[in-house]
Amino acid sequence: MSISHKPNLRPSAQSLGHEAVQLLHSLAQFGSVPEGGITRLVYTPAWREAQAWLEREMTSRGLLTFWDDVGNLYGRSEPASPGGRRILTGSHVDTVRQGGCFDGAAGIVASLIAVSWLRATYGPPNLPLDVVSFAEEEGVRFPVAFWGSSNALAAAEGREPTPLPRVLDEDGIDIERAIRDANLPPASRRSRQPVGAYVELHVEQGSKLEEAGVDIGVVTAIVGQRRYWVEVVGRAGHAGTMSMQARVDAMACACSLLNELLERAAAIPDLTLTAGQWHVEPNAVNVIPGRVTFSLDVRHSSERQLDLFACEIERVCSNITAERRASVRLTSWMNQAPVPMNPSIIALISSAGNDAGWSSMPVLSGAGHDAQTFAGSVPSGMIFVPSRGGVSHAPDEFTSSDALGRGIEVLIRVLYALAYETYLP
Amino acid sequence: MSISHKPNLRPSAQSLGHEAVQLLHSLAQFGSVPEGGITRLVYTPAWREAQAWLEREMTSRGLLTFWDDVGNLYGRSEPASPGGRRILTGSHVDTVRQGGCFDGAAGIVASLIAVSWLRATYGPPNLPLDVVSFAEEEGVRFPVAFWGSSNALAAAEGREPTPLPRVLDEDGIDIERAIRDANLPPASRRSRQPVGAYVELHVEQGSKLEEAGVDIGVVTAIVGQRRYWVEVVGRAGHAGTMSMQARVDAMACACSLLNELLERAAAIPDLTLTAGQWHVEPNAVNVIPGRVTFSLDVRHSSERQLDLFACEIERVCSNITAERRASVRLTSWMNQAPVPMNPSIIALISSAGNDAGWSSMPVLSGAGHDAQTFAGSVPSGMIFVPSRGGVSHAPDEFTSSDALGRGIEVLIRVLYALAYETYLP
Repeated sequence: MSISHKPNLRPSAQSLGHEAVQLLHSLAQFGSVPEGGITRLVYTPAWREAQAWLEREMTSRGLLTFWDDVGNLYGRSEPASPGGRRILTGSHVDTVRQGGCFDGAAGIVASLIAVSWLRATYGPPNLPLDVVSFAEEEGVRFPVAFWGSSNALAAAEGREPTPLPRVLDEDGIDIERAIRDANLPPASRRSRQPVGAYVELHVEQGSKLEEAGVDIGVVTAIVGQRRYWVEVVGRAGHAGTMSMQARVDAMACACSLLNELLERAAAIPDLTLTAGQWHVEPNAVNVIPGRVTFSLDVRHSSERQLDLFACEIERVCSNITAERRASVRLTSWMNQAPVPMNPSIIALISSAGNDAGWSSMPVLSGAGHDAQTFAGSVPSGMIFVPSRGGVSHAPDEFTSSDALGRGIEVLIRVLYALAYETYLP
Repeated sequence: MSISHKPNLRPSAQSLGHEAVQLLHSLAQFGSVPEGGITRLVYTPAWREAQAWLEREMTSRGLLTFWDDVGNLYGRSEPASPGGRRILTGSHVDTVRQGGCFDGAAGIVASLIAVSWLRATYGPPNLPLDVVSFAEEEGVRFPVAFWGSSNALAAAEGREPTPLPRVLDEDGIDIERAIRDANLPPASRRSRQPVGAYVELHVEQGSKLEEAGVDIGVVTAIVGQRRYWVEVVGRAGHAGTMSMQARVDAMACACSLLNELLERAAAIPDLTLTAGQWHVEPNAVNVIPGRVTFSLDVRHSSERQLDLFACEIERVCSNITAERRASVRLTSWMNQAPVPMNPSIIALISSAGNDAGWSSMPVLSGAGHDAQTFAGSVPSGMIFVPSRGGVSHAPDEFTSSDALGRGIEVLIRVLYALAYETYLP
């Protein structure tokens, strides 16, 4: 594949990076918390102010702004003649609690800069080119990850908005009231136009690019995720009176189990296994744990490997708990298949990286992203830029100005091909 | 040692056991919870009603009741001529949350039955013989285990009551207000008379007696306890984006550490090691644990063994965390020396068991008891009766009627020697 007309005025990655850092700095004022980091949960005042700020930035750059039913914000670079499928690029401004200022936000400012640079340099595109800030990606305030992008896709496909789920936040506020309180502008019919392609820049959140010393990650797939609860039941007992030999310590059993599983996981390339959440009962200093429940999060790009590891988990759980006279219940509660990115968009990103002179490599995304919502029905792709130390979802999340600039340059080239050359896969 | 005058009317262990079960059944109505078991925390209405019920039972058996400053309740079998050091026997009616109906309560009803049987059979004793229900033993509502017995001892030694500690319960109520709300009767000067001996019957809460098929445990010592917090610090990270190789998973490290320590603990006879309380941060399904804090409770009857194991803990913590690139902080927050029981009281219990024809064996108490408060300054001893399956601090805690009856018979013989024959060590 080759792209016939590349942008002839080359943007400066350095100045793009500087602009990105400026915008990220401004955006970081919304939801910054005294304990460190940023907490900008969907539909809260901090999130609402961030979206309003973004709308002003879009307007000042000559983009036409509009909203949809759930608070997704768009800034359009209008084509000279209307019509045609939209080219969508963006990310999200909602964060985890005490998150960093790059996850989501980097993609937002990159899209804003890329689309405005293209408009300022080449004038109107041939297809509507929309920057989008999805209303919700993280699923932290409400357990509805990708809520924004799911509704954006539904609108673009002429479907009705997803019915409001009956979910409450920590303060007992339901999502319907949260939306009402956010006082969103009315939805525009523009949000219902079909989408021709979706491209998202995001920080890697891992350390593969940094370790390889590579500028651009070309995402080939978003890994599949399976989640389980492992409930180990032993026998609670008095810490001083029950002999070590007589015990069925649920925590001792859970620890053996986890260590064995982690060892097996580490032997499988690219598989990740995380036991992040633990509930110990009765969780008292002087009582032998009688019941321990913990989560397992398993990710891999191959469905088959996830199947095999699921068998491994079952086997290890039943062997170890039998050895220790405990019992175990394994519950699967999430099964997301791996999502491949569109091969043509992958090639487009890769070739844009080469043309710009930045090193690139194919990478997997270990995290979920809004791109996975679109990838099933719209040609989609993702550009990763390096994360220092692979740190993310934490206040010390960091990507350098130069690294951001390189990513934005690649995004510009990709969007040029899609919206100006109407190179649609 | 021999006891000159043994009770010449032999009580029937069977009928004593039946009476005990009746009384335990009545007592169990106070604080019984729908989730199962009994929650009777100090100074709550359930506890207050239990003490009031007990006072009525004491009165109906001809005992003279009185209280002290903190709500310890006494029922005295008055001697014909006043004066002399008191013989104290009792336990506590407060429980853990969802506890059983034997821990503490068995000693209360045993004392009540034993003292009334002696009074009904032999008339007034030669020394004041007091049944005592200590205001608090478990330390569950407020972190002040042995609060009742500590104050009882202070009063008996003519010391001022322990200053009220500044502690709050889960609802933010401080102990001062809790005492006020309990509306306790005024303290009697009788609570300030010196104590000559203390004897407590208690369920074993372990399974040694049951395993050995023995009726009576003669407690030789209450084990020493040391408690630690182990804080393991790794690095939090995204469950999907951080490779297994790059992780410093605090929970994986804590699990290795615990398994290694449990293995070493199991090799030391009579040592117990319990990691009962766990705090995992951030405790989210999709985040690698960055910090894990867990408690260690170590018990043994030898101070030297506790010292040696403390070194072991330090060594294992620093080796394993170093291997795994984590860091660790070990904080010791409780150090209670082992408490030996009085050798003469030990011999008295043992000989009473033989005289009654019940099998007995020396045992350690792995749990703390009010007896340890007295043992430092007053000759003290404990009689254990078997616990089914060693279960305690749980709704299915159980001791049979016959086993209780045998223990009460032994208690009667011991109290006869102390209060009627004034056999004081």
